[in-house]
Amino acid sequence: MERQDRDLAWMLQLENIAWYEDGKVRILDRRIYPVEVRFVTCSDHREVAKAIKGMVTQSAGPYVAAAMGMAQAAYECRGRSEEEQIDYLKQAAYTISHARPTTVKRMELITASCVDVAAAALAGGMRDVSGAVKEHAIQQNSERYARIGQTGKYLAELFPQHGAVMTQCFAETIVGMMLREARAMGKDVKFFCPETRPFFQGSRLTATVIHDMGFDVTVITDNMPAFVMKNEGIDMFTSAADVICCDGHVVNKVGTYQIAIAAKYHGIPYYVSGAPDQGHPTVDTVRIEMRDPSEVLQAMGTETANREVKGYYPAFDITPPELVAGVVTDQGVFSPYSLGDYKTVPGNIVV
Amino acid sequence: MERQDRDLAWMLQLENIAWYEDGKVRILDRRIYPVEVRFVTCSDHREVAKAIKGMVTQSAGPYVAAAMGMAQAAYECRGRSEEEQIDYLKQAAYTISHARPTTVKRMELITASCVDVAAAALAGGMRDVSGAVKEHAIQQNSERYARIGQTGKYLAELFPQHGAVMTQCFAETIVGMMLREARAMGKDVKFFCPETRPFFQGSRLTATVIHDMGFDVTVITDNMPAFVMKNEGIDMFTSAADVICCDGHVVNKVGTYQIAIAAKYHGIPYYVSGAPDQGHPTVDTVRIEMRDPSEVLQAMGTETANREVKGYYPAFDITPPELVAGVVTDQGVFSPYSLGDYKTVPGNIVV
Repeated sequence: MERQDRDLAWMLQLENIAWYEDGKVRILDRRIYPVEVRFVTCSDHREVAKAIKGMVTQSAGPYVAAAMGMAQAAYECRGRSEEEQIDYLKQAAYTISHARPTTVKRMELITASCVDVAAAALAGGMRDVSGAVKEHAIQQNSERYARIGQTGKYLAELFPQHGAVMTQCFAETIVGMMLREARAMGKDVKFFCPETRPFFQGSRLTATVIHDMGFDVTVITDNMPAFVMKNEGIDMFTSAADVICCDGHVVNKVGTYQIAIAAKYHGIPYYVSGAPDQGHPTVDTVRIEMRDPSEVLQAMGTETANREVKGYYPAFDITPPELVAGVVTDQGVFSPYSLGDYKTVPGNIVV
Repeated sequence: MERQDRDLAWMLQLENIAWYEDGKVRILDRRIYPVEVRFVTCSDHREVAKAIKGMVTQSAGPYVAAAMGMAQAAYECRGRSEEEQIDYLKQAAYTISHARPTTVKRMELITASCVDVAAAALAGGMRDVSGAVKEHAIQQNSERYARIGQTGKYLAELFPQHGAVMTQCFAETIVGMMLREARAMGKDVKFFCPETRPFFQGSRLTATVIHDMGFDVTVITDNMPAFVMKNEGIDMFTSAADVICCDGHVVNKVGTYQIAIAAKYHGIPYYVSGAPDQGHPTVDTVRIEMRDPSEVLQAMGTETANREVKGYYPAFDITPPELVAGVVTDQGVFSPYSLGDYKTVPGNIVV
């Protein structure tokens, strides 16, 4: 494929993260992508919650899926009384937001905004508000893209003109946007991507996007970041985040904390992109999801350990502000200790 | 199996690391152990070198295989003139020692001692010295076991009475010896083992030995050590080493450096077991083996990344003395800055 086509293919794939149509939500299965491009079809909103919990979609994907799941829930209760529909949607919002414990707050904002849109449409006399909720989901996503585009620009500005950057896990839209900007700025940057066990999002997803955007990319295993920092001239470590607490603690894919410690040791700055999450004024409200331990005792479906040993699987970890050089947002770069200066626009759901 | 039987089975397995018999060397294939117990049979000493290079055996296994390969080389040149045999054995010593670049010095000591034994036997009129070299290999290994037993005792003394220890990769004999001693001391310790990508020696080998010795063991992926240190009350990090330089730098399985950095950050001591390697007065003589990059783009034989991205595979990394709390040897625990105090016994090959 030509560079332009690839870029287009990648943008189209973003549109296909999750999509509501005719009572069903179709979600790109990132557990197997890009080895196979396959979709999971959810026939009701509970299946959307189940798909999020099962990590069919990850990174920012669950936020899109959640809003599309709300459109689906609206379809499921269409024709009932206004009150019944709102009750049904509130219940659906609860189910979908609680699919994974670490992102409940953010999910609640998204699903609550869908309930608001539905309530307004119902008050206006509409009986099937699924279309209105879907429109809202698309608009919410477009606004998100615009903010992420701006964030990507600020992030790319921090890149060296010639140098090397280490990433962690799949920053999805942000990684794409930042690379578009970096390319436009003529930055000559190569990337090192830790593979991100146990599901290899780093090797499968992040590395593929970076390669498709035309940059030099090298995959390493999760035990190599410190070696690479010591020996390969890494200029910056960067990741997105599942939660950025207002006190500067960063919650992201497990491994981020360890790489941030190694970066500090080598004098390499760590920049996280996203925005402070008003639902988490401090780190104390964060609950780390502990997943099925057996998931770390396999790799690509093959067992890796004796059946009698135990596993342990925290999905995320917490990086304290002392290890964060800056938080890159759509409003510019903030110190992790000054996130109070970030202006939250009412109704602007930070994702 | 009962505890005692398992212990015995484990000791017998050690005897089976590599074995010379009737012109052939049989090596336990640790690339698949313990999922399958299978042996690689080498029909000449070059195949032994190839098996070492291919990581059929790892950790201390290559040292046993090297000595057994020298017995095999002696068999191959039996009956030739004394001079021809010594030439042949010196050539074999070179081939075997250079199988992997990082351990050349240690391998040269082992194979040179085999040449010395062969030369003495040839001078005494023997024409087939393979038996004498094999005897030497067994004796060398027994001495090694005795030293390692002493090392394991000093290491187990450092364990908390009740607590948690993190390991790295397969410390083979040392891990077994230290656990025997820890059990005898009634220490109630649980272990966390990072899996050690790309070949999973931590989950397959270290964790299995620890479990079989009757201790609580939990496998984690290589991106989790810092999280576990922060949240699970780890008291100590410990590993063996492929090389301990006399200036206190530790060369070991890639990932050790990163875990040692995380340990330092959390105030957890890192103890390495082994002995200073006189072949490496400083770290400057160490050459890190860079292996086939494609090995990091697979897991248990399944591809993990897009075929167009690159891989990168340093087999070892270097931990500086500032991150090492102590070097545990058969002569006691040394500061990494005082390794000159370790008494090298002439003819005592430090493995």
